[in-house]
Amino acid sequence: MEPGPAGAAGPAEPGPSVRGAGRAAAASSLAAAAVLPAGGSGERMGVPTPKQFCRVLERPLISYTLQALERVCWIKDIVVSVTRENMEAMKDIIQKYQHKRISLVEAGVTRHRSIFNGLKALAEDHPDSKLSKPEVVIIHDAVRPFVEEDILLKVATAAKEHGAAGAIRPLVSTVISPSADGCLDHSLERARHRASEMPQAFLYDVIYAAYQQCSDYDLEFGTECLQLALKYCHVKAKLVEGSPDLWKVTYKRDLYAAESIIKERISQHICIVMDTKEDEEHVGRHLEEMLKNELNHVKVTSGPLCQAGRDLQQIILEQCYSFVCVNVMTSEFEETKKLLNMLKESHLSILYPVVVISVHFLDYKSVHFDHKMENLMQIRELAKEVKERNILLCGLLIYYPQDEQKLQDSLRQGATVITTLIKERNSAFIGQLLVA
Amino acid sequence: MEPGPAGAAGPAEPGPSVRGAGRAAAASSLAAAAVLPAGGSGERMGVPTPKQFCRVLERPLISYTLQALERVCWIKDIVVSVTRENMEAMKDIIQKYQHKRISLVEAGVTRHRSIFNGLKALAEDHPDSKLSKPEVVIIHDAVRPFVEEDILLKVATAAKEHGAAGAIRPLVSTVISPSADGCLDHSLERARHRASEMPQAFLYDVIYAAYQQCSDYDLEFGTECLQLALKYCHVKAKLVEGSPDLWKVTYKRDLYAAESIIKERISQHICIVMDTKEDEEHVGRHLEEMLKNELNHVKVTSGPLCQAGRDLQQIILEQCYSFVCVNVMTSEFEETKKLLNMLKESHLSILYPVVVISVHFLDYKSVHFDHKMENLMQIRELAKEVKERNILLCGLLIYYPQDEQKLQDSLRQGATVITTLIKERNSAFIGQLLVA
Repeated sequence: MEPGPAGAAGPAEPGPSVRGAGRAAAASSLAAAAVLPAGGSGERMGVPTPKQFCRVLERPLISYTLQALERVCWIKDIVVSVTRENMEAMKDIIQKYQHKRISLVEAGVTRHRSIFNGLKALAEDHPDSKLSKPEVVIIHDAVRPFVEEDILLKVATAAKEHGAAGAIRPLVSTVISPSADGCLDHSLERARHRASEMPQAFLYDVIYAAYQQCSDYDLEFGTECLQLALKYCHVKAKLVEGSPDLWKVTYKRDLYAAESIIKERISQHICIVMDTKEDEEHVGRHLEEMLKNELNHVKVTSGPLCQAGRDLQQIILEQCYSFVCVNVMTSEFEETKKLLNMLKESHLSILYPVVVISVHFLDYKSVHFDHKMENLMQIRELAKEVKERNILLCGLLIYYPQDEQKLQDSLRQGATVITTLIKERNSAFIGQLLVA
Repeated sequence: MEPGPAGAAGPAEPGPSVRGAGRAAAASSLAAAAVLPAGGSGERMGVPTPKQFCRVLERPLISYTLQALERVCWIKDIVVSVTRENMEAMKDIIQKYQHKRISLVEAGVTRHRSIFNGLKALAEDHPDSKLSKPEVVIIHDAVRPFVEEDILLKVATAAKEHGAAGAIRPLVSTVISPSADGCLDHSLERARHRASEMPQAFLYDVIYAAYQQCSDYDLEFGTECLQLALKYCHVKAKLVEGSPDLWKVTYKRDLYAAESIIKERISQHICIVMDTKEDEEHVGRHLEEMLKNELNHVKVTSGPLCQAGRDLQQIILEQCYSFVCVNVMTSEFEETKKLLNMLKESHLSILYPVVVISVHFLDYKSVHFDHKMENLMQIRELAKEVKERNILLCGLLIYYPQDEQKLQDSLRQGATVITTLIKERNSAFIGQLLVA
């Protein structure tokens, strides 16, 4: 996976953007808006917080979804419907995570009413709106954070052609119809049915007309926008096969899954900052090799940070969230501090916690205890300070020199510790000095 | 949640068993068998290993499902259909995790054929079977590990009365029917349909007769056993509302979710072993209070292990998988070693990794460095040794004495570290001496 474009507004999951020439052409002729109903109460989750506001890596789920939409430059406006009681919380989220192109409207009591409120805000005749009416409007769920530009473009393009389009997925379970006495009446043929997912897209005039005509019963009890377009505007939606990533965060287990997926994605790339003298470099290289066995994409910048600074700036711009700073024969944190300063200036950690591991190859058995304790205390203070900036700092001591076999074992254990700290991204271990 | 019965055959997730008087009566009149088709290839998962053999906390998923069925005493036999190539791996799993009452049969090329093979093994006229024909047979999926006795009993009882029964769940997405050109033909009313889940149960004679009559087409392309009972035996299955826990591990994200759920369940109960002199006991109590804020069920056994041994044996029998051994003013591991020996003898760690955290309240600034390093090395060796028995040992130093405010901060940090080590249950940190 290659990182996305450097410095894009609203950095998204590191990953590929849709950039083929055909796609670019399709996208360039589109001017779309998105409506995100986020007024749900999340009762199925079994938790008091509505699921779109549940925290994943300490950030509300809806922020990930906004980030996924923001990265798409042809989506000009994003209208979010939230309940009055969550309005302030939503404003805080937008400010804290620096979301752009977002307008808030008040949610209705049902999903359809919330969507309708979002559509009204985009209408030409809307009295105090600064938004302009889009040709195509995308409707998406606040609790489907993993939507990719690819599928957004497919449904938007299909909507432009057909009037309406929606993502579908194969059914996981057989669907059955119960009789009134709670027994099986009949089961549906799985191959002839699909699950209707999100995103969906519509010509704005089609879906707005459908909502204007639809009955109170529809607004209260309906769930399916494609059905409204069919019923009131006779538009048969084009169905577009989506990826499994489109799934909706519904139950508590889905939050666990979302957190694991996000952790996995942001742990794909790691950067090793190597400040070693030439004759000692080989231990750093060995560690690098072992990390490459456990993590997919390992980049290395060598030399003191004053020289490697430009490489590093580039790596930061490319949204790398994991750094290993290798120091040979020093218990000082000077290079680590320089790295931390660069990270603080970059604002990289606004969206995701950034892990920094300060690795020290050290003959610590011969160092005086008081000196070591001073260092230990120093990393704890340093870690506490940068934690406020969402940077998770940990130390790792590897005893050096030692005989070659033992060194290999230590390196292997060190690589496992580093990999786990990066993948788990857990703030409980900040400031610890681990030993391999 | 109260722990299950002590010493039950095939320990299951710690959690409630069905034990109401009515339930007990229903169960006592049942003699059921279970058939578990496990021949699937797991192509939806996007991983080479079939999903039922994917590892969750280093144990194959199917072992959790077997454990869930085994704990139910009225399920007399469990027949698992596995492909020839996985037969040996399956035998190893049964031996390693000490599963009981399991018979293996060869899977067919489709799900229905695998189930049929399982049913044949239970038939009266089966030539070399040691199994006896059950009145009721439960069909379950190898990839639904969280099935509870409650729902098993409900479907089995309903099957006895109605001939067939199956668990259902509300639909998460709207189901639609596409037209031939890939557009929306119509959408189904969500409230009038349900997802058919597992477990299902049948009178053995009903489902066996249905399979004997059914066509090759059914065996090749069908998926729904309830439908076979309806079509060939005119038995209308009773539908039983199941809990969200019944979900099927289908995609990679489901494996992440399963691992998180299992970790959460086995981290519910922790046991603090407190070996403190009376005048120092208060730091242990403070730590206990803080842990109670973060974890649900904290049990404490006080006094040296030679005295607290019987309490502890009971706690181990009740399947507690997390232990905190509190030592005040000593850097020795004597008490921790005694605990480790008890755990080793108990075989508790066969099914789940057991976490042991050796906490030392210590004025470590005044202890000589060499002495500390010796201890450090000792816990590493000890951890390496017990890791082979699936016991994850970690050390935690809390600086003591110090002023009351700092002590509170340290205790809070210590509680966070302990909670995280227990919840994450990650083997990368074994043998580390963490500092709070």
